[in-house]
Amino acid sequence: MSEQATHIPAAPRQRVLSGMRPTGALHLGHYHGALKNWVRLQSDYDCFFFVADWHALTTHYQSKEVVERNVYDMVVDWLAAGLDPEQATLFIQSRMPEHAELFTLLAMSTPSSWLERMPSYKDQVEKNRELATYGFLGYPLLQSADILIYKAALVPVGEDQAAHVEVTREVARRFNNIYCAEAPILPEPQALLTETSRLGGLDGRKMSKSYGNTIAMRDAPALVEEKIRTMPTDPQRVRRGDPGDPQRCPVWEFHQLYSDAGTQAWAEAGCKSAGIGCLDCKQPVIDAIVKEQAPWRARADEFLANPKHVHWIVEVGTERARAVARKTLREVRAAMGLAY
Amino acid sequence: MSEQATHIPAAPRQRVLSGMRPTGALHLGHYHGALKNWVRLQSDYDCFFFVADWHALTTHYQSKEVVERNVYDMVVDWLAAGLDPEQATLFIQSRMPEHAELFTLLAMSTPSSWLERMPSYKDQVEKNRELATYGFLGYPLLQSADILIYKAALVPVGEDQAAHVEVTREVARRFNNIYCAEAPILPEPQALLTETSRLGGLDGRKMSKSYGNTIAMRDAPALVEEKIRTMPTDPQRVRRGDPGDPQRCPVWEFHQLYSDAGTQAWAEAGCKSAGIGCLDCKQPVIDAIVKEQAPWRARADEFLANPKHVHWIVEVGTERARAVARKTLREVRAAMGLAY
Repeated sequence: MSEQATHIPAAPRQRVLSGMRPTGALHLGHYHGALKNWVRLQSDYDCFFFVADWHALTTHYQSKEVVERNVYDMVVDWLAAGLDPEQATLFIQSRMPEHAELFTLLAMSTPSSWLERMPSYKDQVEKNRELATYGFLGYPLLQSADILIYKAALVPVGEDQAAHVEVTREVARRFNNIYCAEAPILPEPQALLTETSRLGGLDGRKMSKSYGNTIAMRDAPALVEEKIRTMPTDPQRVRRGDPGDPQRCPVWEFHQLYSDAGTQAWAEAGCKSAGIGCLDCKQPVIDAIVKEQAPWRARADEFLANPKHVHWIVEVGTERARAVARKTLREVRAAMGLAY
Repeated sequence: MSEQATHIPAAPRQRVLSGMRPTGALHLGHYHGALKNWVRLQSDYDCFFFVADWHALTTHYQSKEVVERNVYDMVVDWLAAGLDPEQATLFIQSRMPEHAELFTLLAMSTPSSWLERMPSYKDQVEKNRELATYGFLGYPLLQSADILIYKAALVPVGEDQAAHVEVTREVARRFNNIYCAEAPILPEPQALLTETSRLGGLDGRKMSKSYGNTIAMRDAPALVEEKIRTMPTDPQRVRRGDPGDPQRCPVWEFHQLYSDAGTQAWAEAGCKSAGIGCLDCKQPVIDAIVKEQAPWRARADEFLANPKHVHWIVEVGTERARAVARKTLREVRAAMGLAY
């Protein structure tokens, strides 16, 4: 068996963990802000991506139909974007009672003050008293359980979520200090700060379903065209003949993401000189978005024609995730003296 | 099949749910305060009794060995006291991840203020800041999950726990209001106020392991004798010839529980007149306790000689409980839009 002797095993890929809340059809903001990055990561890391339906309930607990409708639809968006179930493990949080068990166990040693001081909690509860629930308070701890149960090394985050990874590190450290005299069981994850693009919405505000200013990943070309053609531009450019200022125009943000340098120069000069009209300026953006969407739509159509396949992908991912989660839980239970 | 036609099915027994924390060998205070009542209830109700090891961790999270050692030992104490696994369902909380899942799901709709205002939380956190954990704050909610997952109709409680049943009723009501448009899924349990005896400890304070003033259910006769013989009596009765006052003597509390009217009259008169000595007075108590313990010790010896049998009893109970818990969870998940 001399061939085996020459085989150099690859270093195990580091595990990456991330989740997304199923609160509606994914839009270009989700794609450029997170999903595109997931697709990039899947070939370099052992990626675990999950539908965070319990997390959606922490804030949407009074509108269950939002969550219900969107779980598998979101998995289709992921697959459409290019997530490959052969490379990444895709699963649904609520199918993993193991997360709830670890959440419950970590709760014992986690000071509630760590959760009360999270900026996301205080801000949102001030705005909406209905959010002052035990579950919403515990949301960062549930997230810690999501991460720690897979011993994830890396968590891709935007800057606004760095505090959540930090609290996960503290939760792990305290658990290890109290229960693991010999060697720590729960590794402290690192934030993986990766370059993502923040795409504004059709009205220049953040792209968000609640603002009604989104382009969904799977919007039909005609709808994309209509949405872009009717989106506002520089409010001071009232007539075709008025020169405009790209800095005041939400279309310019789309150009910066979707257009090459030549097209950007053309649009900027044409706007400032009133050499082109706003509809002229918008056309390359429409074309670029429709082109970007084409492979998504093609893949989504395949999966939508075969929903059993999507369920099967989730089944396989769930079982793969469960094997890892159970192993961690066995270690955690033993460390806490709960293995009878 | 005419015989079947005459068969009148018994009305289903109401379900009773109660748990006990495994924080040490059970003592006479546990027996008279709770366990004796459980034994009485088991023939009239569908009793689910569980080892509340997660609850023990909410307060003892830094001393896991306490919990670890005592789980099966407590089941032996239960069986020794006369709990019958043919009548009652005996199981271990931490073997039921279903409780953690329902706890997590109920957390979404439960205001944290309901938990913060529990008197048990505020008092104990003021005494011990290490208890200011998310888990200890959520302890009444975990208890609600314990109860609601079995749709228990009745929860035997002392007066100091009535607030916990009340919060469980509120948690169930709010869940039903938000998620159950047609019919409520989680019935509101009632407190079952039953007569129990509070037995003071050897020093007259509450009997409690932390005071070192207990007689364990399975203390050997010689140890019982020693403990009673050395227990303090009326501090003003210094010499044999001094008359005493039963009201100031912790032995008198034992007489009230263990002695018949004749013995009580004898002890009272003998004490007040210095007609008997304290050791004379203690002897009937020693005899009564040793007699009470005899069948416990006999049964415990059988089970200790066959630990596999104890494990088997717990296995069977756990599976019986799991079937009920899973059914409730299916209904809860569907109501919350989590059944994919």
